[in-house]
Amino acid sequence: MDELRNRAILLNSRPNGYPSQSNFKIIESDIPEINPGEFIVKILWLSVDPYMRGRMSDKKSYAPSVGIGDVMVGAGVGKIISSRNNEFEVGTIVEGRFGWQEYAISNGTNARKISISEKDSSQALGVLGMPGLTAYFGLFNLGKPKPNDTVVISAASGAVGSVVGQLAKLTGCKVVGIVGSDIKASYITKELNFDNAINYKEQNVNQELQNICPSGIDIYFDNVGGETLETVLENLAFRARIIVCGQISQYNLYDDEIAHGITNFRNILTNQVTVEGFIVSRFSADFPQAFEYLENLFSEGKLKAKEDIITNLENVPTALLRVLTGENFGKQIVKISENN
Amino acid sequence: MDELRNRAILLNSRPNGYPSQSNFKIIESDIPEINPGEFIVKILWLSVDPYMRGRMSDKKSYAPSVGIGDVMVGAGVGKIISSRNNEFEVGTIVEGRFGWQEYAISNGTNARKISISEKDSSQALGVLGMPGLTAYFGLFNLGKPKPNDTVVISAASGAVGSVVGQLAKLTGCKVVGIVGSDIKASYITKELNFDNAINYKEQNVNQELQNICPSGIDIYFDNVGGETLETVLENLAFRARIIVCGQISQYNLYDDEIAHGITNFRNILTNQVTVEGFIVSRFSADFPQAFEYLENLFSEGKLKAKEDIITNLENVPTALLRVLTGENFGKQIVKISENN
Repeated sequence: MDELRNRAILLNSRPNGYPSQSNFKIIESDIPEINPGEFIVKILWLSVDPYMRGRMSDKKSYAPSVGIGDVMVGAGVGKIISSRNNEFEVGTIVEGRFGWQEYAISNGTNARKISISEKDSSQALGVLGMPGLTAYFGLFNLGKPKPNDTVVISAASGAVGSVVGQLAKLTGCKVVGIVGSDIKASYITKELNFDNAINYKEQNVNQELQNICPSGIDIYFDNVGGETLETVLENLAFRARIIVCGQISQYNLYDDEIAHGITNFRNILTNQVTVEGFIVSRFSADFPQAFEYLENLFSEGKLKAKEDIITNLENVPTALLRVLTGENFGKQIVKISENN
Repeated sequence: MDELRNRAILLNSRPNGYPSQSNFKIIESDIPEINPGEFIVKILWLSVDPYMRGRMSDKKSYAPSVGIGDVMVGAGVGKIISSRNNEFEVGTIVEGRFGWQEYAISNGTNARKISISEKDSSQALGVLGMPGLTAYFGLFNLGKPKPNDTVVISAASGAVGSVVGQLAKLTGCKVVGIVGSDIKASYITKELNFDNAINYKEQNVNQELQNICPSGIDIYFDNVGGETLETVLENLAFRARIIVCGQISQYNLYDDEIAHGITNFRNILTNQVTVEGFIVSRFSADFPQAFEYLENLFSEGKLKAKEDIITNLENVPTALLRVLTGENFGKQIVKISENN
């Protein structure tokens, strides 16, 4: 394989506030010979997700930080081009935590074969991957939705939020999405069948929630935290459930900046609310059933997914910034090369 | 009964900040003739609890506010002195929501006969009443304690906190109490067998929690909210449970004062924490078993209770202020007259 060169993006420094290009460094290297049990994946698609901001920080979190000089972590989908592992043959499409690079060597531990066609294989990073599973387990296992429950979702047109809303609609819930543009608002109501959308940049979220949810919110699927969370806490139904999946509004603070303070925590008491933070890996034992459920819905056309695709490895940092600022529209994917 | 006159305390105005005497008015009236099914209770003991501050406010809460001019709500224990109800005979000791007054008329709906001796009957307002039940259901149903779990309790020498800690010790947990004086600290460690105490007025709570709970806090039983809650959120174990029982630090805000903002809500996500607010009435179907459990422990001397008793109806407002400022030491009770 010595004709092949790999390019990878390393973490070069830790960001203060939003990340910038200078926090990353691109390097080129030979791809080493593989050992027995290993295989080489040519990466086709990289996933770009909000949690990556957390990995760039050295603050304590649920997963270790990326070290300075290490390849940035992340999931990708690729094709096996060389293999010394009988379980993973050349030509197989796999999804795994391959990092921000063009080629990855794996022993199969963190890779899964996917049954989706190569053309649609990027979906294994979105609706048919971790974001889809996150939506599924957060909504069903923690939210415990019933028909007619009012479900509010922030970052509602995103990779997770859009699936949460569609699954809640299929359960018979009333679904309200909070988004950051009129185009996204129109997308979730017209294409995804949400009942209502609120554009938090243009509308008074509190007023809209009061109007749209007169009996209060039964389930809040929180991807953003901060002010939106505080506003939702003013509009909860008795025994509401809050699923804390992301807090993206608080991910890009400057070192001397304090996170938004939630001043109405007391409503958790008065409304007897359950708030639960979760990381999808907790439910790994049940991933197979969830994948099957989501794949069936998707193949029947009952679960729609929008992708926002940028091309070229060097654009992954730009794609991350898009996700963190909400500029992306749909699941952010980087297509590694034009001629995938 | 026309020789008997009743005295009652009415809500006279709504407080701004801490309540004061001027928010209350004492009135005297005749006790009316009772109807069939009713009985008259001579109140012996009144319970004084933090939630009463919420009833004085007209902000939305889980229970309706007391109206201006209405008798203040609250639980009491008394003796039936006249009865037209066959289920409740003269001489019976009952506990019920009788309000801040010397005599109450009841039809039995909100009264329960208690089996404790008249001498100990005030315990039906504390360890063997709502505070005890609140501790029991909060700890067991929401906290789900296991042996060796680290349990932290705020307002730990109070009516609820002291029971939570003793039940957690009986479960085999490591128990840490946060209190507001050295005397209370000494009480919970020496008399109640808590493993550690922190005096939040004298010690650095964050530093102490780091030292005492190096593997993090598994269960936080929150009676106070505010800064203490925020500090605890910095010291949680993976998959911790936070039981939101009270937020007393936030009950006495001035009208133009904003509650303490919780800036580290994100830790709920990263530690996959469950936060649950509850009101004990949710568990009413299971009250009989809980009463039996607590009464047995109490009679075996395995559950201790400290009372802080003030005498005379006119001192109920003072007693409430004591509870709201943490001046009380043990369950706050008002003995209605010297010659009870």
